[in-house]
Amino acid sequence: MDVKIRVATKGDCKDISRLIMDLAVHDKMSDQVKLSCDELQRDGFSQNPLFECLVAEIADENKSKEGFTIIGYALYFYIYCTWKGRSMYLEDLYVMPEFRGFGIGKSLLSNIAQVAKEKQCARLHLIVLNWNSHSLDFYTARGAQDLTVKEGWHLVHFDGQSLDHLANETQQIRKCVSGEDKVV
Amino acid sequence: MDVKIRVATKGDCKDISRLIMDLAVHDKMSDQVKLSCDELQRDGFSQNPLFECLVAEIADENKSKEGFTIIGYALYFYIYCTWKGRSMYLEDLYVMPEFRGFGIGKSLLSNIAQVAKEKQCARLHLIVLNWNSHSLDFYTARGAQDLTVKEGWHLVHFDGQSLDHLANETQQIRKCVSGEDKVV
Repeated sequence: MDVKIRVATKGDCKDISRLIMDLAVHDKMSDQVKLSCDELQRDGFSQNPLFECLVAEIADENKSKEGFTIIGYALYFYIYCTWKGRSMYLEDLYVMPEFRGFGIGKSLLSNIAQVAKEKQCARLHLIVLNWNSHSLDFYTARGAQDLTVKEGWHLVHFDGQSLDHLANETQQIRKCVSGEDKVV
Repeated sequence: MDVKIRVATKGDCKDISRLIMDLAVHDKMSDQVKLSCDELQRDGFSQNPLFECLVAEIADENKSKEGFTIIGYALYFYIYCTWKGRSMYLEDLYVMPEFRGFGIGKSLLSNIAQVAKEKQCARLHLIVLNWNSHSLDFYTARGAQDLTVKEGWHLVHFDGQSLDHLANETQQIRKCVSGEDKVV
């Protein structure tokens, strides 16, 4: 099967949105997707984009059951590690189930690694759900290290109310820690 | 004690480098720090900086045993979540041991959250070592969720040889998956 891996354009956002939702359904977390196609366009395809994306495209004659030709994507951005410097973070890598087994995921990942090297990234990070042994095996078979197992790193986050609460604490702390003008 | 939380400048890099090493020693991973002060200056304080940083500064009369007045820092950057959009990642938050217990870490964290809200970030992510119960407690007491425990997320990475190997696979895949001109 002919597969073209190419840089995503603004016109691909509808397909990328669809694939983001497919992946969230696969991860059993579809209720968490709050991002619209318009937001994705604005965030990735205007000045100072917040991410970059590659898509896997097949010829029209091989299109999916539902008629799609964009059948996979890899979305990534640059992060910073105070130990090693500029690094890359692979947010999503996904290939539609009916197109698996052709090496398309492998090809997306390898292309991502090539971009990482070109951009002088020391590391490529990603997160995987521990029950998703298929994905974990996919990465570790290619030399990835599970840093949660190896070193004990846990992913922690604030969102919604907890983030609001934290931000609002500044006012309170200003009164406690020091003079009002001393805390930004 | 008077503490000023302010945006870091290029001139703070020597102190930030020192604190990065202190934190790595605390995390028992000092051998992993490969970043020089010059690289930190270049990456954070030139055009298109790769990170932002706040520092905690005290008055000269309260300086540390070794004579330092920059006694804590929080280094962060922006990431992207395909479920929620723009988010913030807190790479490091550190206060020198002799200045703990004054609410300085709390103040740094709260200021970070405020920047996150101002920049329309939906989430604030960070990673913590599972044996570091002091840090884990510090964050969870403020409403953070441990997503490794709650949802099973594992941090995975490629670096060094495994990243090189991955990048070099493209050439090979080009021959297998499709015509040379079809894969970027």
